Amino acid sequence: ARPRVGYFYTGKTGNQLLSDKLKKLQVKEFQSIPVVVNENVSVYDAIVTMFLEDVGTLFVVDKDSILVGVLSRKDLLRASIGKQELASIPVNIIMTRMPNITVCRNEDFIMDVAKSLIEKQIDALPIIRDTDKGFEVTGRITKTNMTKILMRLAENDII
Amino acid sequence: ARPRVGYFYTGKTGNQLLSDKLKKLQVKEFQSIPVVVNENVSVYDAIVTMFLEDVGTLFVVDKDSILVGVLSRKDLLRASIGKQELASIPVNIIMTRMPNITVCRNEDFIMDVAKSLIEKQIDALPIIRDTDKGFEVTGRITKTNMTKILMRLAENDII
Repeated sequence: ARPRVGYFYTGKTGNQLLSDKLKKLQVKEFQSIPVVVNENVSVYDAIVTMFLEDVGTLFVVDKDSILVGVLSRKDLLRASIGKQELASIPVNIIMTRMPNITVCRNEDFIMDVAKSLIEKQIDALPIIRDTDKGFEVTGRITKTNMTKILMRLAENDII
Repeated sequence: ARPRVGYFYTGKTGNQLLSDKLKKLQVKEFQSIPVVVNENVSVYDAIVTMFLEDVGTLFVVDKDSILVGVLSRKDLLRASIGKQELASIPVNIIMTRMPNITVCRNEDFIMDVAKSLIEKQIDALPIIRDTDKGFEVTGRITKTNMTKILMRLAENDII
């Protein structure tokens, strides 16, 4: 009897097909909204923004809205146990700055982002668009997005 | 010609099989080592421990090594912008305490942990063993573990 489910024999196993499909997932399908602060705001205000917006990573931009830095909870926590007054230090003193920022673009593969997050031990990457002046931040992709992708795979919702 | 790859017709598609396998992954296969602090240490010392051990979540235990609290980077950051002297506040003042702690056990399913992490907006769960006195912490499972599982799926390393 003919099976009611159609199989096409490609020489690949089901696992290989899954792996191939996973490797093709792109950043643009799974991103979150970025939260940015200006490079002149204080560390105190950045921490308050982080709580208000409920994110784990802030992106720092200059007056032209170009990416100049990244602030993680870890960066802010490190600053907060220092001796300085948090309300008087600007974030550009403590942020991770270009060219030490790992970025990604809409067309990049999710699996490459996952690899960067793990290898560089960071929680989020900014998604950027290239402009004449530099990188414009358009999104955010995090380990939370990766956890959600895993859940959707189990729910049969992606592949 | 006979295909060289054997298919067994189960009435399920490849996707359904993947989903079924994913849903069977258990906590014990993918956990990390837990980092614990005593409930009497100061917030300052907890922050230092977090940096030294390079983790995002600390578990707080009593004198019998029983789980009594959880400290996230967010909890510590919130405390650090307060007015108090961090070296003089014990962590049990600011920690999330029982019964508000979500725990999991070795035999629990990874997908249930993923769901808890997303729904409760937390980064890590303690893995516990039940004892007469309460919960003993045996491991830690985080969004980093989830990201690694996703990578291993793409590398065809798990399923």
